[in-house]
Amino acid sequence: MAQPNHDPVAGDVLGAYLRSQATAFLRGLRLHATSGPDLARSGHAARRLRGAARRISGSLTTFRGVTESGWSDGLRTELVWLSSTLADEHAYADRLARLLDALHRLSHPPELPVPRNTAGPAGTGGPAGTGSTGTGSTGAAGAAGALTVGCARAGALLERRLTPARTRAHSATLQALGSARFHAVADAVAVLASEVPLEPVAARGRAREVLVPMAAAAQERLAAAVAALPDPGGAHRYHADHDGSWHEVRRLLRLHRYAREALGEAGARLAEAGEALDRHRDAAGAAAASAAAARTPRIAPATAYALGVLHADQRHEVEAARSAFHRIWSPPPERNPATAPAPAASVTP
Amino acid sequence: MAQPNHDPVAGDVLGAYLRSQATAFLRGLRLHATSGPDLARSGHAARRLRGAARRISGSLTTFRGVTESGWSDGLRTELVWLSSTLADEHAYADRLARLLDALHRLSHPPELPVPRNTAGPAGTGGPAGTGSTGTGSTGAAGAAGALTVGCARAGALLERRLTPARTRAHSATLQALGSARFHAVADAVAVLASEVPLEPVAARGRAREVLVPMAAAAQERLAAAVAALPDPGGAHRYHADHDGSWHEVRRLLRLHRYAREALGEAGARLAEAGEALDRHRDAAGAAAASAAAARTPRIAPATAYALGVLHADQRHEVEAARSAFHRIWSPPPERNPATAPAPAASVTP
Repeated sequence: MAQPNHDPVAGDVLGAYLRSQATAFLRGLRLHATSGPDLARSGHAARRLRGAARRISGSLTTFRGVTESGWSDGLRTELVWLSSTLADEHAYADRLARLLDALHRLSHPPELPVPRNTAGPAGTGGPAGTGSTGTGSTGAAGAAGALTVGCARAGALLERRLTPARTRAHSATLQALGSARFHAVADAVAVLASEVPLEPVAARGRAREVLVPMAAAAQERLAAAVAALPDPGGAHRYHADHDGSWHEVRRLLRLHRYAREALGEAGARLAEAGEALDRHRDAAGAAAASAAAARTPRIAPATAYALGVLHADQRHEVEAARSAFHRIWSPPPERNPATAPAPAASVTP
Repeated sequence: MAQPNHDPVAGDVLGAYLRSQATAFLRGLRLHATSGPDLARSGHAARRLRGAARRISGSLTTFRGVTESGWSDGLRTELVWLSSTLADEHAYADRLARLLDALHRLSHPPELPVPRNTAGPAGTGGPAGTGSTGTGSTGAAGAAGALTVGCARAGALLERRLTPARTRAHSATLQALGSARFHAVADAVAVLASEVPLEPVAARGRAREVLVPMAAAAQERLAAAVAALPDPGGAHRYHADHDGSWHEVRRLLRLHRYAREALGEAGARLAEAGEALDRHRDAAGAAAASAAAARTPRIAPATAYALGVLHADQRHEVEAARSAFHRIWSPPPERNPATAPAPAASVTP
């Protein structure tokens, strides 16, 4: 809770947060309208718009009943529609960039220093068992070359497949932003920026008695979802069957984070955990796109091979993001006091 | 050094070790000769034969000059030839088994418990941004099915490619074991089992003055090779360009381990580190075999895709083996006292 007011009223706390996010939304909208053909600027504006829309809809979800319900349920639905429409275009762009980056990395390892020869005295010979020569050792250079060709082709294929989807999503964004539906959302947010429709009884209660328990419930839903995450298993590494539980944790973590923001409690740890889950989502999507591209009829074996390496690479990134999340969320005991010096009491899962 | 004799003579210590290994070699040989068509038994016998051959040649390398040099250099060369010949057949068999196991794992993830639904209250809707639907989400079942088909075909291809190599290696083993060259080695080892040709002056010195410095030199070569290992880099994950340095560490670790055995110092940590490096070698070989198989002309894209996933999977195992080695070799500071309670002074790299 904000320090200056020791015991503020729920409506004041939530109202201030919603007004500030509504203002950020309107600023993003103005930025977007004036960005013209500047893609970087319009992308930045759309991100701000989405961030504010998510925060408003998230707060209306967590603190449902503190605002006027009929109004807030309607606005929430519209904000979800808007932010997911805006998200699609960027998701396709980011996914293609991620896949092309990964392919570049796969086909171009950085230059190596010449390995030092650390062998024993000349003529040592050494014990046998390094053996196992023959098949498989047919030239690492040739293998790298084949992977490079495959990666170039796989990149071209992914570009052919993802660019139309991105273009479609871009048109959908433009269409949405010009629609009557969007103008109605913008009008509602403009109202919100000046006056938040509150539910009189709940809003007049103390924040610690009204908002804090609601935020705690959101946190409990998150903790339960984290506890229910399937055990990591090597056999599942290349399969998407666990992804859904993780995406759900990502959604609940966001709600928890926005609820804490509304209470004036920012947390670097929550932001970091959220970033790990964003990477998780991106890598899982990229892996799926790679697998889907490999099912394109009549592709060259080299292309399919590169897509297989790429798929496994992105699933490996999925695993890495899961480990990163677990490290942030429940660091090993000996490091705990160091990473959480301030007693962020209510945050610990 | 062995505890009972406080200050034994170098020739006694090395002689006892060489005689015991020569006896193990002859026992393995007899077992192999009587194993007939029992593949498990002949495989076991060959492993014992190889283990003894490696230990003898390794000790003759590290403690060169304590035995009669002309004799030991010749025997060492012959033992290296023998153990690498014996190793090839098993390397092919193990590699095929490893690849087929991995393919089975890739195509058959274990059954999952039904994921618990940890969502919030009904009708929550939730903030947007899970978005990014569309391409890539076209049915995880379809993707798994395609990978299963590809894995089956990749397995058949690898079997077709590796089985002839294994058969050739098996013939080479049989031919080697029936050769005059082999009988000469066996005769030399039989002599070794009863009497070790020592270099009189060196062998008469104290073990701690003669053998211990030689073992320390072997350990220093290993430590230098470990220190020279390239930094792990994600970009190199799918490339074999660092493998050579690791194979060299594996060779030097073996020499170090056998030298310590000869001095009566067994070490579980060295055995574990050696196992990690064996896994490293096996995974690197399997990854190379997978990449080589993907260059077979006219294979189906699904086969190539599965080989790509398999290649990346085995390169991931290579990384895991490297991490395991580093963890065993230089455990993190806080765990150090627990894992190394006995001051194994001279071992620490």
